[in-house]
Amino acid sequence: MIKTDILIIGAGPTGLFTVFEAGLLKLKCHLIDALPQAGGQCSEIYPKKPIYDIPGFPEILAGDLTKNLLEQGKQFEPGFTLGERAETIEKQEDGSFIVTTNKGTQHHAPVVAIAGGLGSFEPRKPAIEGIADYEDKGVEYIIKDPEVYRDKKVVISGGGDSALDWSIFLTDVASEVTLIHRRNEFRGALDSVEKVRELTLLNKINLITPAEVKELHGDEKIEAVTVVKDGEATKIETDHFIPLFGLSPKLGPIANWGLEIEKNAIKVDNSLNYQTNIPGIFAIGDVNTYPEKLKLILCGFHEATLMCQAAYRIINPGKKYVLKYTTVSGIDGFDGTRKEAPKAVVQAIN
Amino acid sequence: MIKTDILIIGAGPTGLFTVFEAGLLKLKCHLIDALPQAGGQCSEIYPKKPIYDIPGFPEILAGDLTKNLLEQGKQFEPGFTLGERAETIEKQEDGSFIVTTNKGTQHHAPVVAIAGGLGSFEPRKPAIEGIADYEDKGVEYIIKDPEVYRDKKVVISGGGDSALDWSIFLTDVASEVTLIHRRNEFRGALDSVEKVRELTLLNKINLITPAEVKELHGDEKIEAVTVVKDGEATKIETDHFIPLFGLSPKLGPIANWGLEIEKNAIKVDNSLNYQTNIPGIFAIGDVNTYPEKLKLILCGFHEATLMCQAAYRIINPGKKYVLKYTTVSGIDGFDGTRKEAPKAVVQAIN
Ligand SMILES: Cc1cc2nc3c(=O)[nH]c(=O)nc-3n(C[C@H](O)[C@H](O)[C@H](O)COP(=O)(O)OP(=O)(O)OC[C@H]3O[C@@H](n4cnc5c(N)ncnc54)[C@H](O)[C@@H]3O)c2cc1C
Ligand SMILES: Cc1cc2nc3c(=O)[nH]c(=O)nc-3n(C[C@H](O)[C@H](O)[C@H](O)COP(=O)(O)OP(=O)(O)OC[C@H]3O[C@@H](n4cnc5c(N)ncnc54)[C@H](O)[C@@H]3O)c2cc1C
Repeated sequence: MIKTDILIIGAGPTGLFTVFEAGLLKLKCHLIDALPQAGGQCSEIYPKKPIYDIPGFPEILAGDLTKNLLEQGKQFEPGFTLGERAETIEKQEDGSFIVTTNKGTQHHAPVVAIAGGLGSFEPRKPAIEGIADYEDKGVEYIIKDPEVYRDKKVVISGGGDSALDWSIFLTDVASEVTLIHRRNEFRGALDSVEKVRELTLLNKINLITPAEVKELHGDEKIEAVTVVKDGEATKIETDHFIPLFGLSPKLGPIANWGLEIEKNAIKVDNSLNYQTNIPGIFAIGDVNTYPEKLKLILCGFHEATLMCQAAYRIINPGKKYVLKYTTVSGIDGFDGTRKEAPKAVVQAIN
Repeated sequence: MIKTDILIIGAGPTGLFTVFEAGLLKLKCHLIDALPQAGGQCSEIYPKKPIYDIPGFPEILAGDLTKNLLEQGKQFEPGFTLGERAETIEKQEDGSFIVTTNKGTQHHAPVVAIAGGLGSFEPRKPAIEGIADYEDKGVEYIIKDPEVYRDKKVVISGGGDSALDWSIFLTDVASEVTLIHRRNEFRGALDSVEKVRELTLLNKINLITPAEVKELHGDEKIEAVTVVKDGEATKIETDHFIPLFGLSPKLGPIANWGLEIEKNAIKVDNSLNYQTNIPGIFAIGDVNTYPEKLKLILCGFHEATLMCQAAYRIINPGKKYVLKYTTVSGIDGFDGTRKEAPKAVVQAIN
């Protein structure tokens, strides 16, 4: 059982900044995310695109914002359960909560902050008969650890940035990379498209378009796929089949936690501190709704900050918290580091 | 008469970010600030100190944050009335407002956003007989334009960063710099203290401590000051006397605008969009108060953003606004510039 002060569901920008604000209040955080990496929409959907409305950044790539937020929270040593979806929540007699993931990992905390964005990202799966039987037996929809493919044969299908970028990346890892797309045209960053073209000419990527994977073969695990191009079927031997058709977010299991839901989002009290109808459970960032709500990153930052104050009072009943400016007080990390502004010197000049 | 869409009182971080958010909604802003420069507390009190809790910046100097915010809003061409204090407000028949400064400058706008922080910064003045008579006649409490002192004799008094830094700066501008402080000890950044020591040894700064300016002399304008050290009085000829004893913020005239005030701050409706009790007047950033308010920069950013949506509806009645992501839609500046993310290419690879 993982124990923490604030259990955060969702490691998008809102969840990540919560770690920092909680840390200032000496509260520890643990984050659960269905994706294998932190950053939420920013890292899953548009890591290489610039955002223009993060205050103080005339322009920042979404991937760099994620990196910065991880760096900003690092000293408060957050825990992570990645690649798992928070599935159930149980309120304990003492008011605390146990949250269990789809893989059975249990987490225990007095405060739960749902920063689930538009929901947990679930892969779009191609409609191939029997594909579910091969999941985790050679069929993967998300690449978690590229080392799994070392010296293996892989077939990737898809026509967007993920399919392009992973095909490129795996040429250095896998023994054979086949890329299949149902159109001739790919949609992605210019340099990715060009790199795939180059690797195809060098025979490092076996490109088959316009084509589709129609059948899967293998006993214990996948051994081959049938590809249909121009009405003609070919069987290709492979160790892995990786359809990368994008991820789409689903509020999913959280919708059944007894929280008030409106417009596919969780209603919160924005006149105070973004608490839901269940005391001790808060919802912050894109996942919540209230009058005048804007689904913007900068709003999640504010919501997280006010929420942490309420969490502090739940966890430290009766203790009074006095706001201190980081500039004035500095920051003490849980890892023993200290950051502080250089002090003014008081010196005689003569 | 200056006309604008949103008249912002206070050019601190909150006011500056409002320019950007308003610009996204095609609304123009004009800012009034009592200080000669933008940045509010950040530039007046701690420009060289690091802030640690601006989301996405593990550390940023307050002065750099100000610079970045100015840069972020630049394309929306804000107007500025600097060095003037907003003094009175008059509601017009059509619901718009006219705000007049202490220098008589008039501003007309349908929406007023008070982002006045802890109030307008007013200099602490030394208790020297008749000093008020010399104001703007050689006595200045704030340095607005250093060129005023070109080839002039100046006497600065004070023992903090401003006194140190301006003494250093003016050695290259003025013909003679005298620095007077009632103690031997100065309180400032180490390198400023050291630099003043060095310039004193080089006779570029005439340092007199512990001493105090006790009398001012001159007919039309200041011509000399009497300095008392160890009980002994000396008369020093000078063109300017600049006491730099710091600025302290005062809510000031805004307190008499008929707004609901609580704890020296303006009450707003935080469950919607930070409007005050007077429709069309909003209060954002440090200047407002509501249950669970935190006087933090990041909170001002969120408040400004929600406020702009309400301003949009007042200025464009009946028009519906649909939130667009900056990443997706790009940004069109009022100066004709356009910023946008590189588009994905759609290309066949063969
Ligand atoms: C193309 C695009 C451009 C955008 N441009 C801008 C912009 O310019 N400016 C701006 O402010 N915003 C922009 N946004 C919106 C911005 O990305 C979101 O506001 C932001 O990501 C919300 O952050 P969050 O942390 O609340 O949620 P998310 O980023 O959505 O993260 C939520 C995380 O929670 C996880 N999760 C959810 N449920 C569960 C569960 N049950 N178990 C485990 N994990 C779960 C998800 O997997 C996800 O990783 C853009 C969005 C897109 C798609
Ligand atoms: C030493 C110090 C350290 C700090 N550290 C942090 C930190 O680490 N993190 C953090 O988030 N915050 C910190 N703060 C607080 C932060 O600076 C404020 O929250 C922030 O400046 C508020 O911004 P604002 O734009 O609302 O108001 P301000 O920055 O106060 O700006 C208000 C402006 O309005 C002007 N004004 C007011 N009334 C009038 C009028 N009638 N006419 C004309 N002009 C007027 C003032 O002159 C001023 O320039 C710190 C503050 C100090 C003093």
